[in-house]
This record gives sequence, structure tokens and C-alpha cells, in this order.
Amino acid sequence: MTRLPEKPATGMIKPLLPRGLADRSSQEIAATRRMIDIIGRIYELYGFCAVETPMIEYTETLGKFLPDTDRPNAGVFSFRDDDQQWLSLRYDLTAPLARHYAAQATSLPKPYRSWRAGYVFRNEKPGAGRFRQFMQCDADTVGASSVAADAEICMMAADTLEALGVPRGDYIVKINHRKVLDDVLDAAGLAGDAPRRLIALRAIDKFDRLGAKGVRELLGAGRRDESGDFTKGVELDAAGCDILMAFLQGHLPEGLVSTGLDELAAIRDLLLAGGYGPDRVRIDMSVVRGLEYYTGPVFEAELTFEVASQGGQTTRFGAVGGGGRYDGLVGRFQSESVPATGFSIGVSRLYAALKALGSPLVEAKSAPKPVLVLVMDKDHLAHYQSLVAALRRAQVPAELYLGSSGMNAQLKYADRRGAPCAIIQGSNERASGQVVIKDLVLGTTLGGATKDRADYLELKQLAQFAVAESEMVGAVRNVLARQAATAKT
Amino acid sequence: MTRLPEKPATGMIKPLLPRGLADRSSQEIAATRRMIDIIGRIYELYGFCAVETPMIEYTETLGKFLPDTDRPNAGVFSFRDDDQQWLSLRYDLTAPLARHYAAQATSLPKPYRSWRAGYVFRNEKPGAGRFRQFMQCDADTVGASSVAADAEICMMAADTLEALGVPRGDYIVKINHRKVLDDVLDAAGLAGDAPRRLIALRAIDKFDRLGAKGVRELLGAGRRDESGDFTKGVELDAAGCDILMAFLQGHLPEGLVSTGLDELAAIRDLLLAGGYGPDRVRIDMSVVRGLEYYTGPVFEAELTFEVASQGGQTTRFGAVGGGGRYDGLVGRFQSESVPATGFSIGVSRLYAALKALGSPLVEAKSAPKPVLVLVMDKDHLAHYQSLVAALRRAQVPAELYLGSSGMNAQLKYADRRGAPCAIIQGSNERASGQVVIKDLVLGTTLGGATKDRADYLELKQLAQFAVAESEMVGAVRNVLARQAATAKT
Repeated sequence: MTRLPEKPATGMIKPLLPRGLADRSSQEIAATRRMIDIIGRIYELYGFCAVETPMIEYTETLGKFLPDTDRPNAGVFSFRDDDQQWLSLRYDLTAPLARHYAAQATSLPKPYRSWRAGYVFRNEKPGAGRFRQFMQCDADTVGASSVAADAEICMMAADTLEALGVPRGDYIVKINHRKVLDDVLDAAGLAGDAPRRLIALRAIDKFDRLGAKGVRELLGAGRRDESGDFTKGVELDAAGCDILMAFLQGHLPEGLVSTGLDELAAIRDLLLAGGYGPDRVRIDMSVVRGLEYYTGPVFEAELTFEVASQGGQTTRFGAVGGGGRYDGLVGRFQSESVPATGFSIGVSRLYAALKALGSPLVEAKSAPKPVLVLVMDKDHLAHYQSLVAALRRAQVPAELYLGSSGMNAQLKYADRRGAPCAIIQGSNERASGQVVIKDLVLGTTLGGATKDRADYLELKQLAQFAVAESEMVGAVRNVLARQAATAKT
Repeated sequence: MTRLPEKPATGMIKPLLPRGLADRSSQEIAATRRMIDIIGRIYELYGFCAVETPMIEYTETLGKFLPDTDRPNAGVFSFRDDDQQWLSLRYDLTAPLARHYAAQATSLPKPYRSWRAGYVFRNEKPGAGRFRQFMQCDADTVGASSVAADAEICMMAADTLEALGVPRGDYIVKINHRKVLDDVLDAAGLAGDAPRRLIALRAIDKFDRLGAKGVRELLGAGRRDESGDFTKGVELDAAGCDILMAFLQGHLPEGLVSTGLDELAAIRDLLLAGGYGPDRVRIDMSVVRGLEYYTGPVFEAELTFEVASQGGQTTRFGAVGGGGRYDGLVGRFQSESVPATGFSIGVSRLYAALKALGSPLVEAKSAPKPVLVLVMDKDHLAHYQSLVAALRRAQVPAELYLGSSGMNAQLKYADRRGAPCAIIQGSNERASGQVVIKDLVLGTTLGGATKDRADYLELKQLAQFAVAESEMVGAVRNVLARQAATAKT
């Protein structure tokens, strides 16, 4: 049992992470926690209650609704358990919620508002900034067909971004409607042609990135990109292209009748009644959303401030969340159809945005650093241990030096840890029942601080002094208080 | 795109979770969050800093150290990515930390104390209470060979349990040493016989469950359980069995020399110096720990209070955490050997324990329930929406009724949601710019509360009254304040 694990015949194992996966620092962990606290507070103000589902579901439960249909496994991590059943890691939080609702329906209030934060997983193709594990924070209303449910989710998205510190004017929540899109595609000559409709929708979805010229090429014969690669187009005639391009600029085909338009108008009225004008939430015909399960209104929360892009230019930060109505998803589990609508915030992406905004929410406000008790004589380890324990009992973060190096290396370690002060006890101090407290913050400024010899000596006395062991905790507290006061001025 | 997902030919999909996986309620989510806050606070008091790793690693990185060696995949969920590399879900937080340390070594302080909370996954065989996703909260010190690192972790485990509300006397942190176990197995006649040593260790690990008789059978010829199943034993002779059984009662083989014993003595001295007596942390020769990677001291945190077991008897709650020294794990990634020791709390298991203890930490202290604004006339939805928005702007949790049912069903919904009050506006109220506020807490007690007609009328007036729209928010706040005051008395 104590034998060490054998190394592979090829030698060392490389300490690598698979691509698209990353470790997280204490700063990111703390910031994410604060973000989810704030998001949850807003969601609960709107009456949504927390519920979570596990990361693994039956593959069949999740279905295949990801936009990446170029590959057979469609972006999902799947495996079999020992009963030979196919299981998958969830790729979003919506499909598991539909399963949860269908399983628990009898015990839940109807309509049912709930929210959750958690990791989702995508088996993405390689690429910069493509993560295979990332965090989402979702809110969903199941059992309400009213557009008031959709309007509410858009208001909540706006409130959430502001609560997180995104100023009004730096974000916009955009709304579109799948039925409007569908009716416009019909008018453009694509009625009943599912494969070409899908290609047209993908082209429209690229409007932000490719602009009008690129999208028009994709709607027509096709487009050759800078690298020379050719993407086949929808092959619409000029009249059809005109209709879709005009639509993207906000002009509907003449005489268009669409229930989607009526619903969008009703949503706009509700938003205005709630005090949410077009500076916060507005209808935008270019919104598509990639997930296949949407059936009605679709939403996208976009950050509109500019950030530096790769080519030295600036670009809008872009989408940090989205959602929509998915009236068919719960119905996969039961004969009765159940309407539903929801919104998902990309927490990892929003974290990057808040960093770009210089938000205090994500800035390093880490836990206080521990005081270091040096080990000057290994034969007295137990006594040093008792000093550390006394500090911790007084709620002062403290560590015992656990390495095997000498005093200089120990002070270097203290420096690396950002320790506010060090406790030193050599044989002389031990004999007299004392410890030396070394203020490591004051100590580093001591060199160039003053030329006046009296001042220097006074500072030196503050920076390193001896006290009785029984007074150590109080003296350390004084040092920490002095440092906190100095840091503020 | 708006076509609904097709249902499988066999009909509906069943809304089932795979076994060993569970949804989590808002109460459990909030309690887990509070637990991790407390655990993290203690860990940081000891100088451990937060760092997290992803849930997926290369299979080779994780290695196979689980005790369940009866099956080829040894309890790990594994799958291939599109580069045909084998990936696995982590089965603990220790192997990923070893990878993290090896990858980041140059930028980390040495020794390196860190902590993390997160889900781990085990492809377990079916069985009651066996979860395939559960949460652990770990602390590890890498780069310290000193037993002071091991002692510190045991003290921290004791402090953590007390901070979580487990009273002193209701828990014990037990320490043993793999080297002592090894030397005793040698003395019992198993030197160099790896397969039989493993069976002997498993037998010892069952001491709590099977008692002395059962373990002795497993060390000898074997044991037949109540169901008639026979487990083959280690086939030790009587002298060998005597040595191991005496060891389990705390008696070492005569003349045994073991560096493990010296280290245990040094740990005990450090514990006593820190003020941790055998009522909190003590040496216990029956501790084994199942994971194969341990090389030195091993720890187990056990809750000693009694709970009802299945057969109507009582039993000790049992282990809620464990750990030990794993000096070989980081060395799998680099030529230089790196000592390490750590401890893992089973958060899900500890949550069950705190529930059994009736801890206030896990009791339902959920978010305030939302006020419900009823929809009496669908043509005025936007106006009802503005009432909800006014409440939310004043930080009063509120919802608009989103279903399509009548007033009675809406009040039933309010009841199910635990709404403190309802806002009702029919055409008469609307005409006069008023709303009716219905106190749903006072309302339910009104029936049998008083026989005195004057009192009844006064209460009735409190339970349902009309106010001007402009005074709605203030009036709702008064109702909530009155309810909070009544709940306290």
C-alpha cells in the first residue's frame, strides 16, 4: 500500500490541462462568488427561488440542441455507465431544468420561477478563448405562456447588469422573436426549406462580425474570407436578399403579418410600464441566438463599451448573456405541452467584462495575509507551534514555517506570502520568555524613509521589537492596526 | 428552427436522473454555501489560500488510486475528446492539486498551503446513499516534509468541525501512520506479499463495522456473512492474527521498531503544544483510509454522536472527512520528489450530520418570499407590471401572477409560494387610483382568532384594506414589518 504509483514507461507524466480548461485563482474565486451573490439577490427580488441539478444527465434527457451541428457528437461530452446507459455532461442549465420540472411538476407552484448557477461543459473545437468548462447563472419561468414572463426576464437582466456595476448606457438588452424571423424567411422565399433557412439564420447571426456586405454575400452565392476559404451561400435571389438585409436594418417586408410582431409590441408596452425604456431594453431584429430549442421571443444582453481587439482596433465587448422562450422542451417529457422562458448569464465572460471595466467587484480584495512564525531551532518546534496556535485562537491568520531552510529563506518566504509581520524567537529570547516581532511592511520602507537619525531609530524600534510571549497577540494586533491605518492614508 | 424537437419513436422521454445523482433544494444550496464560508474562514486563518482546478483532467494525470479495484474502470468516469485523448472527471481534489502544483511550481511559495471546495465524481456501483457526484472541501500543504504540517492539518480539522457547530465531545480526529501499519504487517508475516497485505488492510478497515470477530475471520480463513456469501480471508496463522488483532486494540508487537511510531509521537507533542488534547485529536491504530496514494500519517474525522440506524438500533454517525500524507503524488510529474499532506471534508456527508444535530446552520433560513400582484384584468397587464416594478425598485421581493387562472387560483398560488401579502386591483379600485392589500399571514389566522365582533372587525380591517397606489410600497412595508414583529413574539 505504501508503494508509490509507478510512473509510465515513457517517463514523467506532463502536468498539463486539456485545452479549454483552466485553474482559477483565489481572486477569481472570490469575485465569482460576489457576482453570484449579487445576481441571486436580484433574481430573488423577482421571486425566483434557487434550485440546482447535477452535472451529469442521461444523454437522451439533454437532447441535441447545440448550434454546432458540423460534428457528430455536437459538442457534448458523453460516456456510458456500467449499465451501458449513455450519460452526458450538461451543456447548458436549461435542458436539465426541463427534466427537473417534469419530474417534480406535482409539487411545484405554477408558474414556477427558479434560478441556478453552475458549470456547463462543451466539447468545443480548439480555439482561443473557447472554454470547455464555464459557469452560467440562469433564471427560468416554467408554466407561463404570457409575454409578461418574457418582459420580466428582460427587465431582470437589465437590473442584474446594473447591480453588478455595469453603468446604464454601457449595456443593452435586445429582443427579437423567432416567429418574426420565420415569417420574414417565408417572405424572402425560403418557406418550407429547412436546410437553407438554417444557413440563412447563421448568416444573419454574423451581422455584428461581418457587417452588411459579408452577410449579403452569405445570403447570395457565398463568401470568400481573407484566408481564401469559401463558404457556400443560401443562393437567395436579389429580391429575397433585399428583404432580409432591409429586415436587419429594422425594416419589415411590406404588409408582413406576424403574431411575433404583436407579441413584441406587447412586450414593449410591459417594459415601458415597468420603466424600462429603449436605453436599457429594446427590440433588435438582428438577434438570432444559436440554440435550436427557442420558439418565441429571444433575448441577448450585450455590453456596448469598447475594448481593444487583436488588430489594435477597438470593438464592442459583446454578448454576456441570452435566452428566450422554449415552449417545446418540457413537453418532451410529458404529453401536456408546457410553456417556458429563461435567461442565462455567462458568468466567466461577464467576469472578463467587469475586469475590463475596472469594477471593484472583481478587484483583489483577498483575505488578510497570515503572520509567519519562524522556526529558529527545530528542537523547539512544539513551542513555535504553541505561538501559532495562540494567534489563531485570537482569530489572527498565522502560519508556522513548515520548510527546512534557514532564517533568510524563511524571511524570503514571508515576503512571498505577503506576511504582515514575522515572529522570531532565538535561544536568547526563549531564555527570557520573549519573542521578536518584525513588521515586514514598515521594514521594507525603512531603507529610504528618512535621513534624520532620531526618526530612523524610532522607526527602526517600531519595525522590530521584543515583547513578552504573553503580550505577543496584543502586540501583533497593534502592528496590524497600524498597517491598516497607514494603508488608508 | 422553430420546429419542436422530435420525440423518440418509443414515445415520451422519462424525466429521470441517473442513480446516485440528485437535485438540490434552495435550503441545501444556502446551507452548503454557509458551510463552505465557515470552512474557508478557518482554512484561511491557518494561512491556506483558495485555488480551484477544473472538473476534467487527462486520465493519466489523475491516475488510479481508488480503493475499488474490483472493476476495470475503477470508479472513474472517462471519455475521449476529439483528439482521441482520454479525459476523466476528477474523483477527488488531491490528484488535480498535484498536477496544479507541478505545473505552477516556480510561481508558488514553498511550502504551499491551499484549499478548495468542489464536486467530485465516482462511477460507483448501485447502493443506498452512494452518490456519484458529491462535494469535497480540501486543504493541502505541498513541499513540507515536517510532521508539523500533518499536526497542523489535524488541528485545523478539529477547529473546522467546532466552527461548524459540532460540539467538542461529538467528534474525534484520529491519526494513524502507514509506516506503522506496514511494519506491523511485516511482523504478522506478510512481508513482501503485496496482494495479501491489501486484503489484510481492507479487513482492518472494516473493524468499525464487523467488530473483532468479523475482522479476525477475514484475517484467517475467511468470513461468511448473514446472506451466506463467503469472503476469502488473508489466511494468516494464529500468531499473525494475534499480532494484528492486538494492534487493533492499541497494542504494538513486542520490540517493534518503526519510524512511523517516532513520527506519531512527534505529532502528538505538537498537538499538545497547540492545546489539542486526546479529547479532540488522538492516535488510533484502526484508521486505514482507502486511497492508495498515502505514504505517512493518515487522518480521519469521525462524528461520535449516535443516530438511528436502519435496524432500529443506534450507530455512530461515522467519518465525515479524512486525509494523509502523499509524498509520491507530485513526483509523478517531475524528477524531484515533493512531500505533501492534506485533508478532505465530505461536505455532502457533513451536511447530513449537521441536519441530524439540528444545527441552525442548515435550517431553513430562506430568502424573504415575494409579494404577489394579482392580474384581475388582462387588458391592464402593463399597469399591474408597473406595480410590481415599483415594489422591486424599493427592494421588496415581488412577482406578477404569470398564469392564466382566476382570482381564487391566484390566491391559492400565493399561498403555495408563501407570499406575505397580495396586491389586488379590480376595475373599481383602478377607477379610484387605489389597490387592495391582503395580508395573507393575518388572513389565515382570522377565522378562529377571536369571537369578539369588534376585535374581529379591527383584525379584518388590518388583514385587507385599500390604499392609494402612491402609498402601496409604504403600506406593504408596514404589513411586512408587522408580520416580522408577530413572528418574533
